[in-house]
This record gives sequence, C-alpha cells and structure tokens, in this order.
Amino acid sequence: MFDDLIARLIAGERRALARMVSLVENNDPASRAALAQLHALGGKAHIIGITGSPGAGKSTLVMQLVRELRRRDQKVAVVAVDPTSPFTGGAILGDRIRMQDLVGDPNVYIRSMASRGSVGGLSSATRDVVRVLDAAGFDTIIIETVGAGQAEVEIVRAAQSIVVVTVPGMGDDIQALKAGILEIADCFCVNKADRPGADQTAAELRMLLSLDTQRGKEDWKPPIVKTIAATGEGVPQLADALAKHLAFLRASGQIVVRGERQARSEILALLYQHLLSRLNATLGADRFNEIVADVAARRSDPYSATDEIAREIGIGEN
Amino acid sequence: MFDDLIARLIAGERRALARMVSLVENNDPASRAALAQLHALGGKAHIIGITGSPGAGKSTLVMQLVRELRRRDQKVAVVAVDPTSPFTGGAILGDRIRMQDLVGDPNVYIRSMASRGSVGGLSSATRDVVRVLDAAGFDTIIIETVGAGQAEVEIVRAAQSIVVVTVPGMGDDIQALKAGILEIADCFCVNKADRPGADQTAAELRMLLSLDTQRGKEDWKPPIVKTIAATGEGVPQLADALAKHLAFLRASGQIVVRGERQARSEILALLYQHLLSRLNATLGADRFNEIVADVAARRSDPYSATDEIAREIGIGEN
Repeated sequence: MFDDLIARLIAGERRALARMVSLVENNDPASRAALAQLHALGGKAHIIGITGSPGAGKSTLVMQLVRELRRRDQKVAVVAVDPTSPFTGGAILGDRIRMQDLVGDPNVYIRSMASRGSVGGLSSATRDVVRVLDAAGFDTIIIETVGAGQAEVEIVRAAQSIVVVTVPGMGDDIQALKAGILEIADCFCVNKADRPGADQTAAELRMLLSLDTQRGKEDWKPPIVKTIAATGEGVPQLADALAKHLAFLRASGQIVVRGERQARSEILALLYQHLLSRLNATLGADRFNEIVADVAARRSDPYSATDEIAREIGIGEN
Repeated sequence: MFDDLIARLIAGERRALARMVSLVENNDPASRAALAQLHALGGKAHIIGITGSPGAGKSTLVMQLVRELRRRDQKVAVVAVDPTSPFTGGAILGDRIRMQDLVGDPNVYIRSMASRGSVGGLSSATRDVVRVLDAAGFDTIIIETVGAGQAEVEIVRAAQSIVVVTVPGMGDDIQALKAGILEIADCFCVNKADRPGADQTAAELRMLLSLDTQRGKEDWKPPIVKTIAATGEGVPQLADALAKHLAFLRASGQIVVRGERQARSEILALLYQHLLSRLNATLGADRFNEIVADVAARRSDPYSATDEIAREIGIGEN
C-alpha cells in the first residue's frame, strides 16, 4: 500500500516526504512495512548529531551549518529533538521557529519532533524519521538534541558524527562532560568564541581528551573547532571537520562498526516492544497490575514475580 | 545459604551489611534469593532522592542533612551514585572522601556506587542496595545523584521524596529543569543562598511551579527551601519539609501509588534481563551477531529481523 508513496518519496516529492514522516512519527503500525523497504534504500546520507547544554547556541549553529552545506550543494535535513519531559509530554518549539527562514529552500527539510512520551519512544521515532530522510536522498541529516543526558546520548548515537557544543566559561559543564558525553564526541565546538575564555575552554577540552585512555593511537582524534554561530565564523571549519570524520569512518571501516552497534540497539529496543505486546496479549493488563500491586505491598517479591511472568509468557527457564 | 547473613544484617551487624551490599552491588546471582527475602522485610525507611547540576553543592548538603537527621536520632544511609559513563565505566569518588568525617558513626552508612556499565545496571543496583539498607533498619536512605538527565530521573524515581538542588544564577539550568526534572521534584532547594540572586531563583522556581498544570489542587505543592550547605543554614527546614512530604504521601495514599510505579518499572527491567538471557540461550551470540550484521549491511531490515528473533525465542506472533 506504500509503494506509490515510497516511489514519490524517492522521486523527491515534498508532500510524500511530509506524509511519510508523519506516519512514522505517529508510529502508525502500517508504516513498518514501508520502513522495512526504506531501510534497504538508505545508508547513503551522512548523519550528524549535535548536542550540548541549553544556551550553547546549538540551534543557531545548526542553522548556519545547514547554510554552509547548502553552499556545498548538499541536500540537508534537520531533525530537532526537543527536550521532552517523560512526565508531561511538553515540548519547546522555539528552535523550529528560528529556522523558518530556511523553509523556502526545496533542498532543506526541517522537522521538530514532538514528544513521544518516553526516551525509548523518542529515540525510536528519531531513528525512523532519519531512515525516511536517508531513503529520500538527503546528503546530510542533522539530529539536534537539547541538553546532555542519557536520553541525548541514546538519540545522538543514531548519528555517525557527533558534535558536542560548549561555550566559554562553563567550568561545571566541562566537568559534566567527563561523564557520558566526552567519550562519544567526534568533534567539539566551542561556540560563542568571541566571549572571554574561549581559548581556555578549548585548552580544557584538549586536556580532557588527552586523559581519555580509551582512545588508541589509530583512533580518530576529535578536533576542537571555535565558532561564532551568530556571525557564521568557524562554521566552514566545522563542516570541513565533519567531512574529514566521515572520510575517516569510511577508510577505517569504523562506519561498519557503528552501523552494527546501531542495528543491535535498535533490534533490542524492538524486541522489548515485542515483549510488552506479548505481556499484554498473554497475561493481560489486569493480571499484570495485580502482580505489581502484590510486589509493592510486599506480598510477593520482584524476582519471583518476574520469574512467574516470564514462565507465563513463554520466556521462562532457559 | 543467606539466612545467617540476613539474621546478622537485621541485628544491625555492620560487617554483615557491608558484605550484603557488596554481593548485591556485584549483581551476584546468588544474592537474588536474599533480595527476595529482604524485600519482604522492607518498606519502613523514608527514601529520599537528591539531584541537581554538578557544582550545586549536593554532597555538602547531603552531609549536613545526615547530621541533622542524626540530631533527630535517626539511622541514616547515603547511596551516592557517581556520574558514570556508559562508555568508559569511569566514576568520580570525590564525594565519598568528603563524607569521611561521618564514617565513625555506627548509625550512619555511606556507600558510593561504582559504575555498573549501563544506566539500567546502575539503577537496578541502586534499587537493590536501597532494598538491603531498608531491611537493615535505616530510618532514612538518601540517594544522591550527580547531574540531571534521564539516568538520574530513572535512579531518583526509586525515592519517595525527591529534592532538586539548584543555586542562584543558573538561568539556563532553570530552563533545563522545565524538561524532565521539574515534574518529579517534591521539594526544591536553592543552595548557596548567600550568593546574590537567591531570591530571584526562588521566585523563578515558584513561577515555573505555578505554570505546572499537571499538578492538581489536592496535590503536593513542592516547597522551595533556601540553604547554605557550607554552614548548615536552612538544613533543619529542609529536613522538616521532607518529613512533611512523607506524612503527605502516607495520608493521601500516594505512597502506594509510588510503590506500585516503582514495582512496575522494576519488574519490566527484570523481564528485559530475562529476555536477554533467553536470547543468549536459544539463539546464541553468534547467530544474533549475524542477524545484526545483516541489518547493518541492509541485507535485512530491523523489523523482519526482530520478528524472526521473536519467533525463535518464543515470543513471536501473539
């Protein structure tokens, strides 16, 4: 049923793209068959993840990077993942509005992801939207996430090249970088580099990187690029660094390793969804709630309860 | 085999406690039977989660809160969850060292959690250590997490009362609070309240709370407490606010709702572990790696691959 839509999508029809992204974003069950087909068509785009603290100027930077890549004659898509709360489903759409000036360009596509209610949901929706954009022939797809926590690490790992944006004078932030983000960065960007302390921040990053014993000699050494997103200064250098990183990934075979890591984590996430459906179909929500209440009231313990559920749904005792 | 250890643990023997915590922290499979027994003995402690940005002075605040609760004649345990990287397994142990002066008190127990390699691992280990401490008769158990991201949200949700610590002049931080942490806070603490801007930060928090449409009239209204952890000022007020919150949870029946939410998320996490064991036992790592490689190379797609795995391990087609 999606053959026509997919054909129009590949032909570059804008409305087909918007329609497919919506289907996928809404997790329409029918869209799975289409996604399976689209998966086979993808693998050509350079997928860039941009993350960092709120206030680092990421959106402006992304906008400038899009403009730079357009000058290099690329088709560019942006997936802006808003900071969503797992509790309220709130989403900040400001970033999207600030990008409106690029909306007229037929070779630019910008999508702000609405909340998916959970980290798992948001990262799987992001992955699927990227899959659509990849099949649709975009040369570069930029995933922008706000903040730097486990959610962002999860989402940004769908990218091939990860940029961590920081600004001068974020001492505590650099400390926080140590935990979680530092190791996944392929490129650092010290934005607002006209502010005092830019060189010091760059030096601190360089020192942190030198302490990172996980990286071997043949590994990629993340460059540190200073930018002023407001004026566009340093953005061509950032684009160059990213192109270099892609070339490194291809030459070293790392692109395969990353692809497999992503496939693994996606399959495990999909299997967990299977598990939940199975739980619902065989045990049922009422019985599950009863078990949960028994554990909470300490009439049962979580381990025996889980063993029992596992047996009932058919994955017990190996 | 754990009966003697459990008996000594309940009798308050320090060495038995340390031994049990180690077993549990190392995820010793044999410790599950003990944890099942300990679960039945727990449910008496007040479990407090303290979270916030790096540099907010959380550790000092926790130390002072422990001293205040000791003055109220409570047995107090602290579980300090270090910012661990999912990639390198690094952990910062500084917090633990700064608490050494409380180590001589037999009614205080402080444990700094080592990295568990993954968010899931860390939060399940934290939950299990809290279970041991609860059964061991601690009146209050404080979970301290550094940073404020999804990992921390996950870990801190094991608590009954959640304190979010902020400091004056963290404009961007307050923005970030909107997403994820604001909704789970039961109490705000403006620490370093002797710095300029403390009243403004408190006012901003008050405004954010007034915008939180998720909270109804009968719901708990999170108080905003100003503290100076370095001198201990405001800490008795924080202890009072937390005692009040516990009383509210009990009177409103919310304590049951929270307990069930925690039990649910724990059971689902344990089920996922079952799934992984099952995957390993029936499919085997080699076959799984083959499937992953096929998906990454686009010879197969993640959806069909997952359906196939689900069938093979026995949770396919409901």
